[in-house]
Amino acid sequence: MIAAKGYAAQSANDTLAPWNFERRDVGPHDVQIEILYCGVCHSDVAQINNEWFPGIFPMVPGHEIVGRVINVGDHVKGFKVGDLAGVGTLANSCGTCEPCTHGLEVYCENGVVATYNNPDKYRDNLPTYGGYSNTIVADESFTLHISEKLDLAATAPLLCAGITTYSPLKHWGVGKGHKLAVLGLGGLGHMAVKFGVALGAEVTILSSSPNKKADAEKLGAHHFVVTSNAEEVEAVKSSFDFIIDTVSAAHDFDFYLSLLKLDGVHIVVGIPPEGFEIKNVGQLQLGRKSIVGSAVGGLPETQEMLDFCAEHRIVADIELIAIKAIHAAFDRMVKGDIKYRFVIDMATL
Amino acid sequence: MIAAKGYAAQSANDTLAPWNFERRDVGPHDVQIEILYCGVCHSDVAQINNEWFPGIFPMVPGHEIVGRVINVGDHVKGFKVGDLAGVGTLANSCGTCEPCTHGLEVYCENGVVATYNNPDKYRDNLPTYGGYSNTIVADESFTLHISEKLDLAATAPLLCAGITTYSPLKHWGVGKGHKLAVLGLGGLGHMAVKFGVALGAEVTILSSSPNKKADAEKLGAHHFVVTSNAEEVEAVKSSFDFIIDTVSAAHDFDFYLSLLKLDGVHIVVGIPPEGFEIKNVGQLQLGRKSIVGSAVGGLPETQEMLDFCAEHRIVADIELIAIKAIHAAFDRMVKGDIKYRFVIDMATL
Repeated sequence: MIAAKGYAAQSANDTLAPWNFERRDVGPHDVQIEILYCGVCHSDVAQINNEWFPGIFPMVPGHEIVGRVINVGDHVKGFKVGDLAGVGTLANSCGTCEPCTHGLEVYCENGVVATYNNPDKYRDNLPTYGGYSNTIVADESFTLHISEKLDLAATAPLLCAGITTYSPLKHWGVGKGHKLAVLGLGGLGHMAVKFGVALGAEVTILSSSPNKKADAEKLGAHHFVVTSNAEEVEAVKSSFDFIIDTVSAAHDFDFYLSLLKLDGVHIVVGIPPEGFEIKNVGQLQLGRKSIVGSAVGGLPETQEMLDFCAEHRIVADIELIAIKAIHAAFDRMVKGDIKYRFVIDMATL
Repeated sequence: MIAAKGYAAQSANDTLAPWNFERRDVGPHDVQIEILYCGVCHSDVAQINNEWFPGIFPMVPGHEIVGRVINVGDHVKGFKVGDLAGVGTLANSCGTCEPCTHGLEVYCENGVVATYNNPDKYRDNLPTYGGYSNTIVADESFTLHISEKLDLAATAPLLCAGITTYSPLKHWGVGKGHKLAVLGLGGLGHMAVKFGVALGAEVTILSSSPNKKADAEKLGAHHFVVTSNAEEVEAVKSSFDFIIDTVSAAHDFDFYLSLLKLDGVHIVVGIPPEGFEIKNVGQLQLGRKSIVGSAVGGLPETQEMLDFCAEHRIVADIELIAIKAIHAAFDRMVKGDIKYRFVIDMATL
């Protein structure tokens, strides 16, 4: 076993504190990474607080992991010591079902193993531990290549916030000639703006806060609509081909449906805990509209996204923090007081 | 003006009774049809009862109209006296917007004019009157050709129940290799089964009533699943590529989402008056599923559907009634006591 250290919650709702633990030995198909940076995702807080399901404790969160390869197994072909590498939200999957054999591991029919807080049922049934730590051992096929061209810390959030927005935009073919609205300007939303612009769409940010307009422009958005301004809303009624909705609080889906044009698609990547309601079914029908969901992305598409980012020089807008500042960061993230993603500098561990 | 007679409701919630009224003269682009049969749609009851919006009274319902051409305007090219012809749910549209110029008149950006209970804002602003009558004057471009090969009375429901189910099945590409579930076995549902089978899909009827199994087989469905039978439901979890949902009462959308496989599509053509709720957004996302709506179809596609029906010998299963039996028919339709569509024999008017 490999000695590792990290920050862990010892039980649900606990604060994170230093914890020493063990990683598995580097197997023939494994890569060991020295973690240099790890992004902070809303789901880290949700899982520490058992909001999704009863967690496995101690829990080391973190699934936006980048660093440098320090060891490779005998059969590893794609990585060598010294390479930059990343690990996202997925640690393992069955590898044999239809989605897995088509590079859609996140939709594994037998259930995916997450990078942390999941027993690895396809390996040893031991819990996975995430990236708030100094090192990780990952299967080569769940490890991504990271370009040396990009700012490494700002690349970390691409592994979750990036692929979660890139994947549906690509899957539903968002591009030139399309009007894309982005709802929610956080970690996911700001990436959606950058990708939408890079893919050639005309991008509008929908926001309840007029004071986010300057930020929207900085991100490259073409338009900014304040959703409480009746006149601005009227001007964009039935106008969008796509809305990418990154909001994880309750919101009015009927209202957003009314902003879609014929054949418009409302892409839901946020997770409103109470779900959502469509009161006016006729509105869905009299525009042949769609409400769709999408979950991160598979490994090949994540690599494609990272390569796209290297080509287009796209990274996240981040605030780099020391790991001891993690709770202050959680508090600010929950309040939405971050532009747009916290990343932990693992040298501070 | 042309003298016409029909059955009309004089006010909201009123019973229908004989009524003499006038149709417009046959204009240069118009076709006058002697109505031989008219299908009875749930929406006829809904509109008489002002369930959708305050209706225009007297109201002559009916938008599944077939008959024979008895007069044509000077510029009419596609029809001649003696031809069979049909009129569906649409009487007019702006003709100039993007959907209209692409044969998607039902999605007219300036608002469609329905075959009855709508002022024709693009012509004379006079209310439209439907097919519970002896004759109708229709614009040639809103008139369909009906094959002599098919049973004429049983063809009438194709004009609404038929196109409402055919259009989304074609639009979302349902065909060979797909598993299609049909939810709700009424006028729309039984047509969806026939179209699904003809398009090459493997069709399953989902029903809460075990006693509909024999009917399902008669319609050509390949499988029948009783939704209250846990074992039968378990066997079809995550299995369907498409569900076409014709139910216009409240039902559990989360449950039906669980029956869709990766990239599965829940097509909503029923109109639950209270709308619907998705409580488990994760289920939408962890399968990249879609919930979509669709409204009847445009004129070119309606003609395509009628031609498809002629080729595949598809008609509705109907019960032919005299017009004086209309209220008994309404009552039975609302109770679901009909296999599967009432059609009025207009010779009884």
